[in-house]
Formats: sequence, structure tokens, C-alpha cells
Amino acid sequence: MKKIAKDQVIYAMSSENKPVLKAHSGDRICFETRDCYGDEITPQDPDRRPLQINPATGPVFVEEAQVGDTLKVTIEKITLQDQALVGSYPKSGMMADWIERRMIHFLPVQENQLEFQKDLVVKTAPMIGVIGVAPEAESVACRKPGVHGGNMDCRKIREGSVVYLPVFHPGALLALGDVHAAMGDGEVMGSGAEIAANVTVQIEVIKETCGEPWVVDRDRVYVITSAETMEEALKQGCYKMNQRLQKQLGLSPEMAGMLMSLEGNSEICQVVNPFVTLRFGMPLVRFLSKEGKRS
Amino acid sequence: MKKIAKDQVIYAMSSENKPVLKAHSGDRICFETRDCYGDEITPQDPDRRPLQINPATGPVFVEEAQVGDTLKVTIEKITLQDQALVGSYPKSGMMADWIERRMIHFLPVQENQLEFQKDLVVKTAPMIGVIGVAPEAESVACRKPGVHGGNMDCRKIREGSVVYLPVFHPGALLALGDVHAAMGDGEVMGSGAEIAANVTVQIEVIKETCGEPWVVDRDRVYVITSAETMEEALKQGCYKMNQRLQKQLGLSPEMAGMLMSLEGNSEICQVVNPFVTLRFGMPLVRFLSKEGKRS
Repeated sequence: MKKIAKDQVIYAMSSENKPVLKAHSGDRICFETRDCYGDEITPQDPDRRPLQINPATGPVFVEEAQVGDTLKVTIEKITLQDQALVGSYPKSGMMADWIERRMIHFLPVQENQLEFQKDLVVKTAPMIGVIGVAPEAESVACRKPGVHGGNMDCRKIREGSVVYLPVFHPGALLALGDVHAAMGDGEVMGSGAEIAANVTVQIEVIKETCGEPWVVDRDRVYVITSAETMEEALKQGCYKMNQRLQKQLGLSPEMAGMLMSLEGNSEICQVVNPFVTLRFGMPLVRFLSKEGKRS
Repeated sequence: MKKIAKDQVIYAMSSENKPVLKAHSGDRICFETRDCYGDEITPQDPDRRPLQINPATGPVFVEEAQVGDTLKVTIEKITLQDQALVGSYPKSGMMADWIERRMIHFLPVQENQLEFQKDLVVKTAPMIGVIGVAPEAESVACRKPGVHGGNMDCRKIREGSVVYLPVFHPGALLALGDVHAAMGDGEVMGSGAEIAANVTVQIEVIKETCGEPWVVDRDRVYVITSAETMEEALKQGCYKMNQRLQKQLGLSPEMAGMLMSLEGNSEICQVVNPFVTLRFGMPLVRFLSKEGKRS
């Protein structure tokens, strides 16, 4: 299996980034990732303020990936390091109006648990915060989300999930990082359990077009959208899902919309990055063929 | 068991509503409810436009309920009638920009399934759309949500859940209705599977104050907040949850906020009523005593 070491990081996704690995459709790759602070904040130096945040390991050049294709990334394994950290930042996140104190709180990881404090543990639920390809136009900082992926902070991007990303440049230039050992939907204080990790994925090139990130887990198909407001992100997600259901099930826009109203879930990924990210999820069964295969 | 027939409905929650039943803390009551159109839209008359929507059956005067108390409502049973309907409305909901056709689609209910169309069934997941008490100040239409409850369209208000509502007037004046046989989070097209139902609840008066609706299900404790925007509703919910966690666990605002960021979920109830409604949920275990009891 190919491996990329954690000294190979980028802080912006761009078509001008030099690939650090060349791979083929079907390959499995292990990404060594740093935490969102580049592993710079430690118990010995908790007050350190990194100049840049959200490094992503990569990018990988995928030989078969052409403009207009879709890159399918199957998340096979996320192996966490043994310590995470979570932060409280003045004037940021959903509690900005009344949180004034900066704190960095270290969380030892043991047996699938994070020790938040004595007698209070949080279960680990590893997920990938940043995953994306080179964006269509100018470079985008890894701390931002967009149609190319990026800092979506989506809890559904976890072991066993499949992420679909649009290819805007030859080779796609996949990079990922910013793993969280745990994070609630919304990441309301602006921080998950930030941690370094090893992430093993399988990549495949699909000769179809997807216009934005989609995620499939055991139960649902999600379209992921980012915008300035939650309302706008949700509207975009509803539009994309409606279009897809029309095509998949042969429904009118009205009938597809009613089905979405009945069994589609509007869900929040994060509300603390430069754009907010929502996902709209429909049951996976709506996208399976009669033989139960994913179509 | 006491029962209220479906001809006893109100279209606004108000301290001036005449009680249709007097009950005691501990009583069980069955509410016969109409669908959100007052049962007026039928396959024989699908084009009918009711003058008022979202009737709630009641109100009940609870003898022990005093201003400042909390009314605890345990949802024991929701029994659906045999036909639901779902609507597509021009220029409404998250798909307003491109849905132009009004449609009313009838959904026969059979064996816990809704027949959406041939070969496409939706599982039933009954929930209560409207549940509330008389608001503190002027009357509020049942189609609106607020701190008194009302049209919150929260999918977690279902069999087995417990709803906590603030008491603003002697007797509380509980009313409920607008049951959905199924609905996705967000109710993105403005309609669930609207249906008449019988709802059995147990009511209890708690001599403590809750400032807004809270819901407890098997896994989580949710605070429910409504506002003009999703961001504002979520901010309010985060504030309330933060306050409660500080008290419950003896945490600072920062530590409570970090715990929320790690394991609190920002969730969407509905985005289609005059105010949108969100819920913020934390694991129930955070609110249990060491003996496992709810505190």
C-alpha cells in the first residue's frame, strides 16, 4: 500500500500544488495526517498560536482522473493517535457572545474513549474534517469548504463511508486531514477532538460527473453543500437532491419534493467555518437497483 | 381515561381559550386530532383550501399547574387513521424557487407503511407537529412555534418521548394536533404525511421552571428553539444547553461548551413555518444521576 508521510502537507487546495504521490484508480493509500494545528499545540506549549491551520496531507495525482469525472474515495480505516485536544476560543462559534476565555483542553485517548475529565468520558467517533480535490478556479484555503470538498467537517465522513468528489483538473489532486476523534453535528464551539491520525482509503475514478460532494454511508445518501447561511446551503442541497431523485426514480419535481419532505433529513455538518456546511440525506434504498446494487 | 373529541379544536393558543377538559397531574388523556387541514381536504375534494390550518385539540386545564411550573407530557401512544396526505405548494418551502404546481397526494396507510406510489412505500414514523400551552402574552396561531411550544414539527416528539413545556398561566392549557405519519427533518417542502390520529399522553406537573420546550427520548435531551433564522435558533439553543450543563455537571461555560462541541448535535426540526425550529441534543447520560435516574 502507498503511504504519504505527514510532512507532506498543504494549507490550500489548488491546481498548482505539486503532487506528492502518483496513484491509479483502485489503489489503496494511507495518509498520515497532522491535527488541525499542524501538531504544534502540545501540553508543553499550550499557548502556541500556529500561523496556519487545517493542513491536509497530499495531494495525490490519480492517473485516470480527467476533468468531469468523479473521484470515489472509500474510507477504510481511521487510526487515531493517543491524544486529542479541544479548544474554547473567545468570540467564535455559536457561543461567541458569552465565551471569553481561550482554553486548550487535552484529551487522552484510551480504548475508544476520550477522557474529558475525571468520571466523564466521551466515546470516540473518528471522522475526517478536511477532504477535497483541487478546486476549479483559484486556490481555496484548507480551512474553507466548497464544491471541491475541503473543510466540510461532516460527521458522516467516517470509516465505512464513501465520498464522491468532482474532478476539476487532470489527476484530481486529492488531499485530506483534520481528523476528529469525536465531534457533534455543528461543531458549535469551533473545535472537535482534534487529533493526528492515519487514514487509509481506496480511490477509484468514475466516468460520470458529480457537481459537488456526496457521501454514502450504511443507511443514507447525502449531498453536501456549503454557503454563507444555513438556509442557502439547505436550499442548494434540496435542489441537488431533487434533481437526482427525478432522474433516479422518474419522478416529477413535485413528487420528488414530497418524497424529500417525508423522508429526507436536513442535517448540519458545521456552522463555524468561513462558510457553513449542511447535508441533505435520503434513504440509500432510493438509490439501489432492484437487485440491491448501488447505481 | 379521559378523552377529547376532535370537534374540540383551537386555531390559536391563548390564555383566553375556554378549557374543554379539567384534569389532574398524573392523568392520562386521549386527544382525537384532525389533520393540519381540519380533515377538510379529501380525495373527493382535493382542491379545497381551508381558511385556517393546524387545529389543535384542547385545551386541557391541569388543576395543579401554576405559573412558573413545568408541564411534563409523556407521549404514550399515537394511533394513525388510515389515510394521510402530502402537499406540494407553489413558492413555499426550501424548493420555492422551482416548484410551481400545487399538488395534494393521498397516501393510504397499511401495516406501518405509506403507499407513496406503486412499488414505493415510506415507513411510518408517527410524530406530533403541534403541541403547546397558552403563551405568556398574546395568543399565537397554532401554525407558529414559540417558547410555549406550538407548531415545532419536531420528529423527536413521538411515542416514548417526554415533552417539557413551561407553564405561563394557571392550568397550563395544553393542546395538541397536526400529527404526521412520517416527516423528514426540515419538512423541506412544507408538508409531512398529514393525518388524523388519536394521541394518548400522561400529564404531570413539576414544580420547577423550564423556560422553553425540552424533549427527552431514549438517547438524548433536546432543547427546542425557534427564531427567524436557523443561526439565531441554534445560538439560543446552545445558550440554553450550555446553562443547563453548567448546572448539571458543575462545569465552566468553556468546559460545557467544549463538551457540547464534542458530543452535542445541532439538528433541524422544520424550516417552513413562520419561524424555523431547531433542536440541540446532548446524550441523556449527561443528565442522569449516578444511579441512572433522570434528574
